[in-house]
Amino acid sequence: MFSTAGQADSNSIQDHVLTQQEIRSAAQLDALFEPIMQDAVAEIGNTAPLLEKIAAYHMGWRNADLSIVNGERPNPGKRIRPRLAMLVTAGLGADPVLAAPVAAAIELLHNFTLVHDDIQDQSHLRRHRPTVWSLWGEAQAINAGDALFASSHLALYAVADRPETAPLLSRIAPEFDRTTLAIVGGQTLDIENEGDPTVTPERYLQTITGKTSAIVEFAAWAGGLVAGASETELDDLARFGLSTGLAFQIRDDLLGIWGTEVETGKTPADDVRRRKQTLPILELRREATEAERTELDAYYAHADSTETEVAHVLDLLDRYHIRTQVEEEIRSHHQRASDALARVIPRGSNDAAHQLYALLDGLEHRTG
Amino acid sequence: MFSTAGQADSNSIQDHVLTQQEIRSAAQLDALFEPIMQDAVAEIGNTAPLLEKIAAYHMGWRNADLSIVNGERPNPGKRIRPRLAMLVTAGLGADPVLAAPVAAAIELLHNFTLVHDDIQDQSHLRRHRPTVWSLWGEAQAINAGDALFASSHLALYAVADRPETAPLLSRIAPEFDRTTLAIVGGQTLDIENEGDPTVTPERYLQTITGKTSAIVEFAAWAGGLVAGASETELDDLARFGLSTGLAFQIRDDLLGIWGTEVETGKTPADDVRRRKQTLPILELRREATEAERTELDAYYAHADSTETEVAHVLDLLDRYHIRTQVEEEIRSHHQRASDALARVIPRGSNDAAHQLYALLDGLEHRTG
Repeated sequence: MFSTAGQADSNSIQDHVLTQQEIRSAAQLDALFEPIMQDAVAEIGNTAPLLEKIAAYHMGWRNADLSIVNGERPNPGKRIRPRLAMLVTAGLGADPVLAAPVAAAIELLHNFTLVHDDIQDQSHLRRHRPTVWSLWGEAQAINAGDALFASSHLALYAVADRPETAPLLSRIAPEFDRTTLAIVGGQTLDIENEGDPTVTPERYLQTITGKTSAIVEFAAWAGGLVAGASETELDDLARFGLSTGLAFQIRDDLLGIWGTEVETGKTPADDVRRRKQTLPILELRREATEAERTELDAYYAHADSTETEVAHVLDLLDRYHIRTQVEEEIRSHHQRASDALARVIPRGSNDAAHQLYALLDGLEHRTG
Repeated sequence: MFSTAGQADSNSIQDHVLTQQEIRSAAQLDALFEPIMQDAVAEIGNTAPLLEKIAAYHMGWRNADLSIVNGERPNPGKRIRPRLAMLVTAGLGADPVLAAPVAAAIELLHNFTLVHDDIQDQSHLRRHRPTVWSLWGEAQAINAGDALFASSHLALYAVADRPETAPLLSRIAPEFDRTTLAIVGGQTLDIENEGDPTVTPERYLQTITGKTSAIVEFAAWAGGLVAGASETELDDLARFGLSTGLAFQIRDDLLGIWGTEVETGKTPADDVRRRKQTLPILELRREATEAERTELDAYYAHADSTETEVAHVLDLLDRYHIRTQVEEEIRSHHQRASDALARVIPRGSNDAAHQLYALLDGLEHRTG
C-alpha cells in the first residue's frame, strides 16, 4: 500500500537512475500520458461521434474538416502543465508513469477551459487555428467544453488503475475539482474586472492566481503526491507551482506590452491597443497622478485608439519605470518558485531535476 | 469492507424496518442530501463569491437580487433523480444516507446541464424564474454551469467519507462522468437534429436516452451499488432507470402536444406551435403518405404558424392514431421499468418500496 506521505524524501532521489534515464526527452513524457488523453476523449464518441471529433479537433488530433491529422500535430500547445507534473514525480525519484493520469487530466482540464474561454472572449483563433465556437457555433462549443471536462475526470480516475496510486484517488480528485473551481472563479473575476477602473493590482493577482496559477500549483502538488512526497514537500511543491504560474502570467502581461513582433507574433503594445488592463497598467494607475489617472481611465473607457494615445500610455509606463517594476516582480516570483522547489528537488539531483529547472529557467527568460 | 456485489439481495429487505421508518417522507430524504449540495456549492465562493451566488440563485437558494431566500424555496424542481437513488438504496434495506453523496451529485449535475441548456436554447424562463444567462449574460452563465459541474464532483467524492462506501468511489466516479458524456452527447444530437427532416424515431430515442434517461439510469444503478446490490440486481436497476427516463421524456412529448393548459401551464399544442420535432411528430412522419410528409416538412421548415396549420398537424396526428401509439409506448417503457424493479425490490417490500412504486406510478400517470 502506498502512503500519502513520508515514503519518499530527497534522499531517495539517487536510487532511481534507470527511471531518470527513461525520461530524457519531453516527447518521451508525452508518450506516457497521451494515450490516457486519447482514451478519455474517445469515450465522448460512445454517445456523440460529432462531439468526439470536435473535441479531437481542439486537441489537434483532427483537422477542421474533421479528418484525422497525419504526422505532426498542428500546435498542440506548450504542454507545460502535464510535463511539470511528471518531472516533479521523476525528480522525486519515482516512475513518471505514476503521474500520467494526473498529467492527462490536467491537459484535458486546461483544454476544456480554453474552449469555453474562447466563447466568452469571442476569440476567433487559438494556436493559429479557428476556434471551436467559430466553426461549430457556441451551443456545440459549450458541449465540447463540457465533454472535455467530463473526459478529464475519466483520465484522472486512471489513478485507481495502479496499486501504488489507487489509494490516492479520494485525495487527488477533490483537489482536481477545487482547482477547476479556482480556474472558473478566476475567469469569473476576469469578466467582472473588464472595464472596471477600480480594479487593484491585488484583485488582479487574485484573478490570475485562480485563472492561471491554480492548475500549475495542482500539477506540482499532484506530481509530488503520486511520488510519495511528505506533507512538507507537498506544501513546497504547491508553492513552487503557484509562484511559477504567477511568474508565467505576469511575463505574458509584460510581453503583451513590450514584446517585439518577432518575439510574440503580435503587434507591439498589443495589450494597450486592445485595452487589456493587465498588471503593468494597474501598477501604473496606482503610481500615476490624479490627472494622469483620469486620462488613463478615459482611454480605457472608450473603444478606438490612435497611435498618439498608445504612445502616450507607453510614455507614462516609461515615466514610472513600470517595466522594471514588473520585471522585478517576475524575478521575485521565480525566486520563490525556485527556492521552494530546491527544498524538495535540489538543482542537479538527477536528469528529471535538470529538465525541471531547465523548464523553469526557460519560463523565466522566455520572450514569446 | 463493503463489497460491490452479492452482499444484499432481495431476502435482506425485511431486515431493516427501522431504516425504512426513518425515511417516510420525501422531505426527510431531501434533508439527507441537501447539506452535501450546499457544502459543495459553498466551495465555489472560495475564489469567486459572485459565482457562488449565481449558482445559489439557480439552485433556488437566492433571489435574483442575490439575497438569500427565506422560507420555502421557489420551485426547487421535482428532484426525482436524487430521490429515486435514495429510495432504491432504502428499498434494498440499506440506510439511504449511504446514497446521499450520489443524490447530491446527481441533482447538481442535472442543474449544471440546465444552466448550459438554457444558454443553448436561449430560454428566458426556468421554473418560472429568469434564467442565469438572461440575468448575468452568457459568459458568466457558462462559468456558473462549469462551477456547478465541478461542485457535483465534490458532492460525489463524499462517497469516500464513509467506510461502507469509500471503496466504491473508483467504480462510481467513472460512471458518473460517463453519464455526463451521455447527457452532453444527447444534447449535441438534439442540436444536430434541429430542423433536420431526416431524423428517425430511432435517432430520437438515442437522443433522449442520452439527454434524459442516462442520469435516471445512473441514479438507480448507483443507489443499488451503495446498498451492496449484486451485479444482476445492478443490471436490473439500470434497466429500470433507463426505461423510467424514456417513459418520462415521451410523456413530456405527449403533454407538449395534448396536455391541457390547466395541466401543463402552456398553450395546448405548444410543441406543434414551437415546431419541436418530438416523438409523436416523428412517428407521424413515418406513417404519413408522401404528400402529407411533404406538407409536414414544409410546416416544420418555416418560422410562423397559423391556427389552421396547427389544427392540420393535430388532425394528421389524429388520423394516424399517434396519441394512442405514443401512449402505448409509454406504457411499454413503464412496464419494462416496473418489471426490472420488481426483480430487485418487489412491490410492497417496505416503506421505501411503497414510495418508489408510488413515484413510478405517479410518473406514469402524470398530467403536468
